[in-house]
Amino acid sequence: MSHPHPELGPPPPLPEGGLRIVALGGLGEIGRNMAVFEYDDRLLIVDCGVLFPETDQPGVDLILPDFEYIRDRLDKVEAVVLTHAHEDHIGAVPYLLRERRDIPLVGSRLTLALIESKLAEHRIQPVKVQAEENERISFGPFECEFLAVNHSIPDALAVAIRTPAGVVLHTGDFKMDQLPLDGRLTDLAAFARLGAEGIDLLMSDSTNAEVPGFVTSEREISPVLNEVFRSADQRVIVACFASHVHRVQQVLDAAVEHGRKVAFIGRSMVRNMGVARDLGYLRIPGGTLIDSREAEELPPEEVVLISTGSQGEPMSALSRMANRDHPIRIERGDTVVLASSLVPGNETAVNKVINGLTRWGARVVHKGNALVHVSGHAPAGELLYVLNMTRPSNFMPVHGEWRHLRAHAALAALTGVPDENIVIAEDGVVVDLVDGRARIVGAVQAGYVYVDGASVGDITEIALKDRRILGDEGFVSIVVVIDSTSGKLTGGPEIHARGSGIDPAAFDEVRPAIEAALAEAAADGVADVQQIRRLIRRTVGSWVNTTYRRRPMIIPVVVEV
Amino acid sequence: MSHPHPELGPPPPLPEGGLRIVALGGLGEIGRNMAVFEYDDRLLIVDCGVLFPETDQPGVDLILPDFEYIRDRLDKVEAVVLTHAHEDHIGAVPYLLRERRDIPLVGSRLTLALIESKLAEHRIQPVKVQAEENERISFGPFECEFLAVNHSIPDALAVAIRTPAGVVLHTGDFKMDQLPLDGRLTDLAAFARLGAEGIDLLMSDSTNAEVPGFVTSEREISPVLNEVFRSADQRVIVACFASHVHRVQQVLDAAVEHGRKVAFIGRSMVRNMGVARDLGYLRIPGGTLIDSREAEELPPEEVVLISTGSQGEPMSALSRMANRDHPIRIERGDTVVLASSLVPGNETAVNKVINGLTRWGARVVHKGNALVHVSGHAPAGELLYVLNMTRPSNFMPVHGEWRHLRAHAALAALTGVPDENIVIAEDGVVVDLVDGRARIVGAVQAGYVYVDGASVGDITEIALKDRRILGDEGFVSIVVVIDSTSGKLTGGPEIHARGSGIDPAAFDEVRPAIEAALAEAAADGVADVQQIRRLIRRTVGSWVNTTYRRRPMIIPVVVEV
Repeated sequence: MSHPHPELGPPPPLPEGGLRIVALGGLGEIGRNMAVFEYDDRLLIVDCGVLFPETDQPGVDLILPDFEYIRDRLDKVEAVVLTHAHEDHIGAVPYLLRERRDIPLVGSRLTLALIESKLAEHRIQPVKVQAEENERISFGPFECEFLAVNHSIPDALAVAIRTPAGVVLHTGDFKMDQLPLDGRLTDLAAFARLGAEGIDLLMSDSTNAEVPGFVTSEREISPVLNEVFRSADQRVIVACFASHVHRVQQVLDAAVEHGRKVAFIGRSMVRNMGVARDLGYLRIPGGTLIDSREAEELPPEEVVLISTGSQGEPMSALSRMANRDHPIRIERGDTVVLASSLVPGNETAVNKVINGLTRWGARVVHKGNALVHVSGHAPAGELLYVLNMTRPSNFMPVHGEWRHLRAHAALAALTGVPDENIVIAEDGVVVDLVDGRARIVGAVQAGYVYVDGASVGDITEIALKDRRILGDEGFVSIVVVIDSTSGKLTGGPEIHARGSGIDPAAFDEVRPAIEAALAEAAADGVADVQQIRRLIRRTVGSWVNTTYRRRPMIIPVVVEV
Repeated sequence: MSHPHPELGPPPPLPEGGLRIVALGGLGEIGRNMAVFEYDDRLLIVDCGVLFPETDQPGVDLILPDFEYIRDRLDKVEAVVLTHAHEDHIGAVPYLLRERRDIPLVGSRLTLALIESKLAEHRIQPVKVQAEENERISFGPFECEFLAVNHSIPDALAVAIRTPAGVVLHTGDFKMDQLPLDGRLTDLAAFARLGAEGIDLLMSDSTNAEVPGFVTSEREISPVLNEVFRSADQRVIVACFASHVHRVQQVLDAAVEHGRKVAFIGRSMVRNMGVARDLGYLRIPGGTLIDSREAEELPPEEVVLISTGSQGEPMSALSRMANRDHPIRIERGDTVVLASSLVPGNETAVNKVINGLTRWGARVVHKGNALVHVSGHAPAGELLYVLNMTRPSNFMPVHGEWRHLRAHAALAALTGVPDENIVIAEDGVVVDLVDGRARIVGAVQAGYVYVDGASVGDITEIALKDRRILGDEGFVSIVVVIDSTSGKLTGGPEIHARGSGIDPAAFDEVRPAIEAALAEAAADGVADVQQIRRLIRRTVGSWVNTTYRRRPMIIPVVVEV
């Protein structure tokens, strides 16, 4: 994906009475969801999430939306609406609040509690506005109405945003489980009511637009878990997302049913389940919960571990168990359940974990061989219901890679949204809703902002390119000391290489060539350090390439004394 | 996977009359298949393939089996039997023949033709022994009987190996398409005949042991392709494996049916299809084939490209088309068919290609949304047939990761093979068949041998570890020039960093600390270069870690003048 969009120029000023929508993330990718709404010089933000890096972004911890588009207008931000508490929707909030601490955060009770406990780790105390289902709250010119949606975390909300420019319905992430564990349905009736009133723009979750049909109910996992527990005679370890309260509830219920104690493993699991329990979203019978130390000591057949690490994260407890690098030793007869999706990009890592666990004799139950996971996102069949109930004048698929956005756009077209009213945008594309019509009018900067260690934005595309070369080929550095008056070599060449696969002794072959080249240059009166560097790079580079057919990074260092 | 196996010691001498089997690759991984059979001090090798590297093996081109186990006994190798011409079965042959050129290669007509054209690129003319179906050929003490099997390349063979120690049936890669395009069935009747005779050890393909049921026939792809062609009004591009002659034949037939010309794209596709056509395995009607230059110039609706790149290889034509970095420009209305499996590890790369193509408006047809691929490996239902027809005394699952080997072992147990006669081995594990019983007796070295550029084996695990650190964190190098007599700093510190994300100007902060540390060391009489290096590493490392919470590689260079 290219960012920003070379084919689109900067947008014209927003016409009076128009609503401008710019996604700074979430379009053309699954992650770092963030949409900025602008009306009459005031801003409303929906979600502010992170994206997790891929292997071609080595060493990066997190990827943020680029706040540059709003950086000099942060004082005009009325609020950040958080549709739910997944990392790809809330993970960048701490970084946004670093730039302006008192932006109000709006969300459901659980969403606010989870973001608050996250912000506490960043020592930030947010300004909160709790939103109830069906409540209307105005933030400047934006009147927001909050609607219940069902997702893989409790208490998720859709938001209808009313301005004089029209009504926008943003679904957030949702699916339409018709028998949800907590009885809280996606409020399709409210969608219909809004549709009757007239929705000028529908922004709807595209994640599963390529998947035909309907979701299986979360509650259908329960009998499968019970069967797994029934046939398990050793330890049971269940890995799932640290925010999936209902999944954890089902595991807890199965554990109690089969007389096992439960320990939570992993920092975010312990933190989130603590919050969920305190607020009454998670019910844990007394005496069930133990800590991980106790779990190590109990007989395996009395224990359930509920752990993070379902995506094969190398430092997670689960990966370490798979490598026998954890106090809990996987033994023949243990059962490991990966009760989670397989997030694209993590296939190899998860496969390694499955093979590692299997090698030690564990039975591994995963969505490939048992119904231990259902998706949190509406597939095509449900998306059609939403399109037909809302009958939007304009449609903009959100929350998806290009393949998902296009598939969702095709569904909208099938339900009768005219082609010219379907807007497929990617990050940074500026969409104006003016006179009831949504149109792309330009693009703004919306590139990746990398978090690595303590700093945000230090890592540039150039640094990543260097990392990719270093990671693939290693480097060879050549240090020479040159007399600054005569230009003659007085020390070195010292040659060091790492990751190049070249035997250090082999450098003796090229040292004479470097010395000869430098002597010739000195005789010709070449004293420019840049030129000497270039000479060394050329000499060593061509030797390596000819001898080894490799292209390590060549680093000539010239010290003048 | 750990190599070699710490828990197993070196094997005892092979008892007289026993058969020893050591897989140097292919067990615990999918790739670099190679099994060494030893009887009476003579060796027979079945397959000699490569493994493709994963992202944690950066910069590596190929991974070979380690030939060390047989290196000083190469003169005792009677032959290499090649079951079929896939890279994971023949790719390491050029490297083995570099060590001894005249090892006879045994295989079917197509297998030998394809390995011969591959070896020609390495300037090696092999010794060939063509094997016919149902033929018996003896290689020293090994009497081999070759049996037809159906796979995703024509002319694949299973091999039954008879020695006085017993009969081993090695299936090679196979499935049991009951209506194969060329009418050549997996010879289950011969398997049954061998079973009646008595099979002492069955070694059978485990790739799809986790997949329930049976394969869909290759010929069912044809109507799907026809429908794709019928509804395509612009260019059609089909990506598939360069050895899948039957898949290519079906695309060619559909192209002819719809009046389109066909160009092959990609070096291995052009080479293999040339061989297949010359030998009569591929039928191309006159006037159908054009070259890629002609394809660029014809109207899109008259063209089909059959291309490599189905695994998202970044330099392939298909990836470059997805990035608009290829003479053929993808336009709205083009159709791209990925008529291939998705090899584990390539998910992210293929997803990028699909998104890239979709972004430009192409319709992408793949196995996720249409029946344009069937696997080449027998799933559980078919594996059960083989187990039941052969009724082996001992069973050893081959060709699979741990998860596949264990799943296949479980199938064998279900069909009645006693647990103690099922041998799950990984690479390097030594299995002896003695007195009709197969047992693990030890392990030998069977680690990864990396090919990078021109050299084999130069890249060690240490170099890869360096690459991973460099790739994740970059490096900081600090050069100081020290007077060898006084120990005083006479030049530098010159600080260079790449991939670290640290602004070069920031190094001014740490330079005084380095100078102070060196001055103090000189005052204390420290003159040892190692100690000075350690001092610099510590000073800079702790500064970077404290300031940036990062751990780049710190490279101190001390030049004495």
